Amino acid sequence: MAENIGMTARAMMNMALDKLRVVAPRENPRGEKACSAASGAHSILEEARVFATLDEALADVHYVLASSARPRDMTKPVLSPDEAPERLLTHLKNGEKTALLFGPERTGLENHELVAADGIIEIPLNPKHRSLNLSQAVLLIGYEFFKATHGADFHHACLETGQAQPADKQSVKALLTHLEDALAQRNYFRFPDKEERMRRNLENIFTRNALTASEVKTLHGVITDLTRPLP
Amino acid sequence: MAENIGMTARAMMNMALDKLRVVAPRENPRGEKACSAASGAHSILEEARVFATLDEALADVHYVLASSARPRDMTKPVLSPDEAPERLLTHLKNGEKTALLFGPERTGLENHELVAADGIIEIPLNPKHRSLNLSQAVLLIGYEFFKATHGADFHHACLETGQAQPADKQSVKALLTHLEDALAQRNYFRFPDKEERMRRNLENIFTRNALTASEVKTLHGVITDLTRPLP
Repeated sequence: MAENIGMTARAMMNMALDKLRVVAPRENPRGEKACSAASGAHSILEEARVFATLDEALADVHYVLASSARPRDMTKPVLSPDEAPERLLTHLKNGEKTALLFGPERTGLENHELVAADGIIEIPLNPKHRSLNLSQAVLLIGYEFFKATHGADFHHACLETGQAQPADKQSVKALLTHLEDALAQRNYFRFPDKEERMRRNLENIFTRNALTASEVKTLHGVITDLTRPLP
Repeated sequence: MAENIGMTARAMMNMALDKLRVVAPRENPRGEKACSAASGAHSILEEARVFATLDEALADVHYVLASSARPRDMTKPVLSPDEAPERLLTHLKNGEKTALLFGPERTGLENHELVAADGIIEIPLNPKHRSLNLSQAVLLIGYEFFKATHGADFHHACLETGQAQPADKQSVKALLTHLEDALAQRNYFRFPDKEERMRRNLENIFTRNALTASEVKTLHGVITDLTRPLP
């Protein structure tokens, strides 16, 4: 269906995958419906290749991994989505053509189609609710490939937090109210156009470092004492 | 919007997350539209709690991670989706209430809302196409939590034999003997200096893909039938 093809193109674009082959589509993968669902990923649809059969689509491909629940009556290597990229990229580096294979929206891939794959990628899902849209399967598997190929660009620094009894949000909020009210009374927010940012900056200081319950108590005391008139 | 809430419930169900809090929804999160989009995840909507403000929704929560692109003008720990579960689960094991915070469909979380979070989860995405649906963000982050908590149930010997018994080496060897003897009788190994390599190549074909016992039986039948004279 055109909408599923469009949403798949969009998920591919999110994950920097760009070569789409469509097998026996029911509707035009470059029509208006598909393009509208693709929102921003038109180029993938424009360059998509359409084939009448799966065999034709895979004719020049050397290594194929298919997204599917593990088949019961077939012997295939089964990989998790995070194991798949390394496996496929090894073949890619050998100069092979590689492909990820997804089934249609409702039925998924049939056994006679899975036969064409060198392995299965099984997405871990709640056994009580395993139904995923086509484009969601593309998104999740594409995500693991994007992590494997571009993950280094997204390096994440972590700030470490303490071990003591943490304050809950309610008491942090009360502390901030205490502080900001006291400051407001003292004309701290004297520039109206800066007030919102000044408040936000203050709030950030006290939320980002995981205050403990006893630190909150301490800070209430600090504010109270600071706002006492000098003797 | 009701449809986004329903699709979010569905993504949560896929990833075995079940406690939903909705802040200031524009439409009824338990109405017909939401339930229809949730297809199969009604229970999450039925048990969802609705709050007028974010502060109220987070009042009893100790630790919050917000899904967002990293904010430019704010100092917050930024985690990748695969770093987030360990961090959050540590707090959970301490007996704290924890939450994942997602923004509305189009705008995402505003800075004054991000302030409430102890950290940011940034999903790695193609910088040229970063737009994700709300339910897709829930799906991707939920997926990493599902992997972290249920991943062990899902695998992964690289080979899934299903119900089938793998063939032992002895029966593979017997199959190869059957094949090579049949070929030898038909003068297949007619060049003595190549015979060893030809045998080795054949053996490789049938040993590297972990045949099952019943596949070995099938191949015996194939050889037998192939070597039968034509009627």
